[in-house]
Amino acid sequence: MRAALLNTGTELLLGDVHDAHLAFIAREILPFGLRFEERRTVGDTEAIRHALAELFPSCEILFVTGGLGPTGDDITREMVADLLALELRQSPELLASLRQRLRVRGIRWNINPRIQSPHLFLLPGPPRELQPMFRAFVAPILRSIVPASVLVERRLYKIADKGESLVEEAIGDRVLAIQGIELGYCARPGEVDVRIVGKSKAIEQADAVIRSTLGSSIFSAADETLEQVIVKLLTQRNQTLAVAESCTGGLVANRITNVPGASEVFLAGYVCYSNQAKINMLDVDAQLIEKHGAVSEQVARALAEHARECARSDDALATTGVAGPGGGSPDKPVGTVYIALAASDETIVKKLFFPTDRETFKQIATQAALELLRRKLLDSAPIHSEPTSTDVPILAWS
Amino acid sequence: MRAALLNTGTELLLGDVHDAHLAFIAREILPFGLRFEERRTVGDTEAIRHALAELFPSCEILFVTGGLGPTGDDITREMVADLLALELRQSPELLASLRQRLRVRGIRWNINPRIQSPHLFLLPGPPRELQPMFRAFVAPILRSIVPASVLVERRLYKIADKGESLVEEAIGDRVLAIQGIELGYCARPGEVDVRIVGKSKAIEQADAVIRSTLGSSIFSAADETLEQVIVKLLTQRNQTLAVAESCTGGLVANRITNVPGASEVFLAGYVCYSNQAKINMLDVDAQLIEKHGAVSEQVARALAEHARECARSDDALATTGVAGPGGGSPDKPVGTVYIALAASDETIVKKLFFPTDRETFKQIATQAALELLRRKLLDSAPIHSEPTSTDVPILAWS
Repeated sequence: MRAALLNTGTELLLGDVHDAHLAFIAREILPFGLRFEERRTVGDTEAIRHALAELFPSCEILFVTGGLGPTGDDITREMVADLLALELRQSPELLASLRQRLRVRGIRWNINPRIQSPHLFLLPGPPRELQPMFRAFVAPILRSIVPASVLVERRLYKIADKGESLVEEAIGDRVLAIQGIELGYCARPGEVDVRIVGKSKAIEQADAVIRSTLGSSIFSAADETLEQVIVKLLTQRNQTLAVAESCTGGLVANRITNVPGASEVFLAGYVCYSNQAKINMLDVDAQLIEKHGAVSEQVARALAEHARECARSDDALATTGVAGPGGGSPDKPVGTVYIALAASDETIVKKLFFPTDRETFKQIATQAALELLRRKLLDSAPIHSEPTSTDVPILAWS
Repeated sequence: MRAALLNTGTELLLGDVHDAHLAFIAREILPFGLRFEERRTVGDTEAIRHALAELFPSCEILFVTGGLGPTGDDITREMVADLLALELRQSPELLASLRQRLRVRGIRWNINPRIQSPHLFLLPGPPRELQPMFRAFVAPILRSIVPASVLVERRLYKIADKGESLVEEAIGDRVLAIQGIELGYCARPGEVDVRIVGKSKAIEQADAVIRSTLGSSIFSAADETLEQVIVKLLTQRNQTLAVAESCTGGLVANRITNVPGASEVFLAGYVCYSNQAKINMLDVDAQLIEKHGAVSEQVARALAEHARECARSDDALATTGVAGPGGGSPDKPVGTVYIALAASDETIVKKLFFPTDRETFKQIATQAALELLRRKLLDSAPIHSEPTSTDVPILAWS
C-alpha cells in the first residue's frame, strides 16, 4: 500500500518550526510494511485543498498533520470535510468531557464520503499530542488494514570513531553485493549512521558483513544515543562518572542526564568555564594554567583527575578547548580541544581539532569525550549480565 | 514568483534524519519576497524524476537538496540532467582543485536546456555545506532574478511567561482586525512564538498592538533565544552568573554557553546531581536535605545562594526537581520543580509543576529559570547603552 504524509502549517514553510512528524510516523509505520513514498508540506491556505486533491488518487494511506487546533489559522479540518462533501459536527459527549480542560472541538465523521478517498488520518500539530494519539488510535487501525505479507526490516548502526567515507570504504561494496539490500549513510557531527533496509534474509547477510567489519566501532545497533550506551555501560560495570567541562559548557552533563536512570551513575558536573572557576572548583594550580594555558594537555589532565577526586567517582571526563568564534591564537586556533579521561588505572589525554561553528564544535567535542569513555568501559568486564547494545540488533518488526 | 523546495533522501522518508533545509532556506528567501508554496520530500529513487516533472510547470524557482554526494545513493544530479536532456560533465579545473581534499565530482551546465524549466538550484544535503553555499552563490542570483516590488515583512515575538491561549486572548482579535495581516502562533516547551506577516504598513499597526499589549512579556522581537537575551542583559549590566543544577542536569549551563561571548558573564556551573554532590560542591547542609528533601524550597535557596558565594558571581540560578520517569512521591510527584535566583538584594524561589517527559521537563524548567533571571535583570538599569532586544524589531528586509 502506498502511504503519503501531508504536513500543514504556514509556520513550517516560513521556517519558524522544524517538522518532527515525518521522522516519528515513518518509524512507526515501517513495521507495518509501510514506507512513505512522498511527503508534502503546504501552508494554512487553499494549498491544502490542492495537495489533498492530488494526493488522494496517488496513495492508499494518507496522514495529514496540523490545523486541528482552536486558533483561527487551523483550517485543515474544514478543507478535508469540504473536499469529501462531509459535514463537520460537534460531538456533545466530547465537548462535555473536554469542557473543563480545553476549548477544543470534537469531530465526528459522516459514513458515506461522496468522493474516493484513501484511508485518511488527521493528526494534531504538536508532537506531544500526535505521538501518543498515533500509537493509541492509528496503529491499531493500520494493523487491521495493511496486508501482513510485505514486511521490511530496517537496521541502523551508529559509529562515532570514523567518518562517512572510511565507513563506506570498509563496507560499501560488500554490502551492496548482497541482493535486495538498500544501503544508506547519514553523517552527523561526530557520528555516522549506516542504515540497511531489505527483507529478512538479505538483512541477516548484510548485518554479518557490517558487524564483522566494523566490530566495536559500532556503538549501537539498537538506535541508542551515545549517552544511553554510556549510562548502560556504567550501570553494568557499577561505575560512577563525573565530568569537568570547560569548552563543552555543560553539554556532556546535559546529554548524560537526559538518560533516565542517569542519577544512579552520574555524580557531578563541574562547568568550570572561567580560569578562576577551574582554580576554585577543582583546585587546578593557577601556575599550571599560567604556564601551559587553560587549553592544554596539562590542564585537561588536571581537570579530569581532580574531578575524579572531588566527586569520588570511578571515572571522570574533562574537556578544554577553543569553541570560537573568538579566543583563538596561532598555536591554539579555534577548534583546538583536549579531551581527558581519568580512570582508576590511567589518565588518557587526546588532542583533537574541530574547526567549525560553536555549537557543532561543542557537539563533536562531547561526542569524542563520550566515545573515549565508551572505549575504556568496553575494556573492563560488566558485573551485570545484560548484553551490551552492540550485541542486540533491533528489529523493525517486533 | 512561485518557489518550491524538493528534498531528496531516503533517510528523510525513513525518519533517520530531520530536515533542516526548509527552515533555513525559507528564512533566507523571505527578504526577496519569496515564500515557499510547497515543499516535497521524496526518496533516492525514480520518485525524484516524477516530483521534478510535476514541480517544473508549477513554480518559477525550484530548490533541490541532497543526492549530490559521492556515495551510490546520490542520484539527484543524474535525474535532473536526464530530465532536462543535459549531459553531465566533469570539470577538470574543479577536479584538480578538489583532488587533494575530496573525492567529489564537479558539474557544468549545458547552455540550452531542451525542456522548459524553472530556475533550478541543486544544493548538497549536509546543512553545513548547504548554508554557506546558499549565501555565497544562490542569494546573489536570487537578487538578480526576483522583482523588487512585492516585499513582505515577517516579525516574530517570543514569550516565555504565558501559554498560547492566553496570548491569543490578549492580542488575537485586535491583530486580525488589521487588514492584510497574517497571524500565527507556535507553542514550544516553555515558549510561545507569535508571528505576523504582511506589508509594511499593516505590520507596523500590528506591531504596535502586540507590543503595547504584551509589553515586557516579549523576551525577544529579534528572533533571539532566551539564553542570547540573558547573555546580552548580563553584559549590558556588567553582571556575572553562576548556576547550580540538579534536575536540569547541565542544560542551563549548556544553553548559556552556546552563546558567543558567554565566557564574559558566565563563571561556573555546578551540576550537583546527587545529594552528596550538593553537599561536597556547594556545602549544602546535609541536615537541610534530610529534613526537607533535596527537592524543596530550602535546598533550592541554599543551592542558589551558595553557588553565588562559591563562584563570586552577581547572580546565581538553581534548579531542583523530579524529572522522572522515576523518583516521584505523593507530595512531590514527577514534574515538581523549585527554581531559585540569588541576587545581590534578594533570593527568589518559585515552585512549579511540569508533569511531562524527562527531556521536555528539563527544557521547561530551564526556560522558567532563565525567564526568572530575565525579569530580575530588567528591573536593574543597564550600564552600557545598547537597546535591549525587545526594543529592536528585526526587519526581514534589511
